[in-house]
Amino acid sequence: MEIEKARSYGFCFGVKRAVEMAENSPNGYTLGPLIHNPLEIDRLKRLYNVHPLSSIEEVDPQKVKRVIIRTHGIPKRDLEKLQKLGVEIVDATCPFVKKPQEIVEKMSREGYDIVIFGDKNHPEIKGVRSYALHDRVFVVLKPEELEGVPLKERIAVVAQTTRKVDQFQEIVDYLIRRGKEIRVFNTICNATFENQEAVRELAQRADVMVIIGGKNSSNTRQLYTIARNYTDAYLVEEKGELNPNWFKGKKLCGISAGASTPEWLVDQIIGEIQKITQTDKLETKG
Amino acid sequence: MEIEKARSYGFCFGVKRAVEMAENSPNGYTLGPLIHNPLEIDRLKRLYNVHPLSSIEEVDPQKVKRVIIRTHGIPKRDLEKLQKLGVEIVDATCPFVKKPQEIVEKMSREGYDIVIFGDKNHPEIKGVRSYALHDRVFVVLKPEELEGVPLKERIAVVAQTTRKVDQFQEIVDYLIRRGKEIRVFNTICNATFENQEAVRELAQRADVMVIIGGKNSSNTRQLYTIARNYTDAYLVEEKGELNPNWFKGKKLCGISAGASTPEWLVDQIIGEIQKITQTDKLETKG
Repeated sequence: MEIEKARSYGFCFGVKRAVEMAENSPNGYTLGPLIHNPLEIDRLKRLYNVHPLSSIEEVDPQKVKRVIIRTHGIPKRDLEKLQKLGVEIVDATCPFVKKPQEIVEKMSREGYDIVIFGDKNHPEIKGVRSYALHDRVFVVLKPEELEGVPLKERIAVVAQTTRKVDQFQEIVDYLIRRGKEIRVFNTICNATFENQEAVRELAQRADVMVIIGGKNSSNTRQLYTIARNYTDAYLVEEKGELNPNWFKGKKLCGISAGASTPEWLVDQIIGEIQKITQTDKLETKG
Repeated sequence: MEIEKARSYGFCFGVKRAVEMAENSPNGYTLGPLIHNPLEIDRLKRLYNVHPLSSIEEVDPQKVKRVIIRTHGIPKRDLEKLQKLGVEIVDATCPFVKKPQEIVEKMSREGYDIVIFGDKNHPEIKGVRSYALHDRVFVVLKPEELEGVPLKERIAVVAQTTRKVDQFQEIVDYLIRRGKEIRVFNTICNATFENQEAVRELAQRADVMVIIGGKNSSNTRQLYTIARNYTDAYLVEEKGELNPNWFKGKKLCGISAGASTPEWLVDQIIGEIQKITQTDKLETKG
C-alpha cells in the first residue's frame, strides 16, 4: 500500500508560535490546554514543566507566576482578572483569533448586530463573543438558528477560524436576504482552508484516509468530515488506535493532520501504518 | 380559462413617485425615458407635454427650462452639467437607486474596491458607478468575470435594484473566498423581490404566464425568466402582441407586470386576453 501526505496539513502558524512561546516559558501555566492535542500537551509538561489549569479560579498568584494564554484566546473578563492578579501574561492567542475578537469589539461599538458562525461551546468562540460591547451577539452553526431572531438591518458576521467556508457562505446567503448591510469578515484562517482543500483533493484519490489530531479539535474534525465524503476515513489521536482491518485491500492511504498535530506524531503514525500493512501483507501471503 | 394576477406586481413606489412628479412638471424634459415603459411615456407626452431627450447634449437652456431626472438616475457628471446650465431640476431618481449611488461614493472614499452586480449598459448602473471617487469599480453579472481581477482585501458590493437575489448571492459567495472583508449592501429593492417571489408562486400553478412590461426593462425581463422556468411564458408590451395560440387548451393564465407597467395597461391586456379566449372557445365549440 502506498502512503501519501496531503500537500498541506498539520501545524499552522498560530500553533507553531504558541508551542514556541510555551517552550520559552518554562514552569508556566496555561488556561485550558494550550492547543487541542493531548500528546503535545504531555510533551510540554515533561520537557518544560508547562501545565494546563482548567479555569481562572485555579490561578493562585502564590504559586502561579506565569500564565500562558492558549491559541484559542480567553474571554476578555478573564484577561482582565489575570491583569489584576498581577501574574506574568504570555499571550499565545493566535493572531488569526485576535482578529475576530477585534472585529467583534469594533463592529459592536459601531452598532452592528453580530453573528458569529461557530460553536458556542468552543473556547475560541467564548473568547471572541466576550469582546462585544452589547449583547446582540448570535452564535450559530446553521442559518435556521437565526429564524425568528429579530435582527437589525446592519449585521456584521465573523467565523470561527477553523470552520468550513461553504457553511459560512450559507449563513451569509441567509443574512443577505434578511438585512440591508451585511459586513462579512472571512476570518476562517488560510491554513485551515488550505488543509481542507488538500484533504479534499487527496481523499478523492485515496482508498482510505487517516486524519491525525485531537478529537476535541474543531479543525481536525472538519478534515475528517471532508475526507469521509469521498472515501473511508478514520480520525486517530495516537498510533494505538490504528486498526489493521482499515487497510486491507487498499492501494493508497492518504494522511492529513489537524493544525494542532505535531510533525513527530504524524511521522510516528505513518511508521506504524507501514508496520501494520507490511505485517498484513505477510499474513496474506502466508 | 381562468386569469389570475400575481399577488404583487406592477408599479413600484419609485415609479409611482416619478410619474406623479412628471405629471406635476408639465412641459418638462426627461433625460432618457422617465421609466422603461413606452406606452406610459406616450401618455405623459400627450397629457402633460413631457418629452424625453436622448442625451444631455440635447439640453438647450433656451428651450429646455425644466429637466426631470429619470427613475434610474443619471451619471454624476451629467447632474453637475445640468446644475451649471441653470435649468430647473426635478429629481425623480428612485430613492432605492440613490442608495447604491451614496454607498458607492462612501465606500470608495473609505478605500474599498467596489463590485457592482448589474448590467454595465443599464442607465441605473452607469449612474451608480459614476459616484465612485476612484476607478477600482467592477461591474459584473457573474462571478467568473472577476477571475483574474486583482481585487483588494476590502471590497464593497452593491446590486442593481432590479436584479435577482440568487445571482447576487453567487457574487457574494465568490467574493467571500477572495477578500478579507466583504461589505455587502443588498440594494435589490423589496418591490422587485416581492414581484419576483409572487411570479414564482403563480408560475408554479399556471399553464401559461403573460408578463406585461417594457422589453428594455430589467425587472420585467427578470419576471419573465423566472416564469419561464416553470411554465410557458410570454413577455408583451401591448395588447397587439397577444397570440390566441398561447392560450389554447390552458386552464389558468397567470399575469404579472414590471415595476414600470401602469395598472391601466394591465387591465387592458387582461381584457384583451378575455376577448381572445372567449373567441377561441366559440371556435372550439363550433
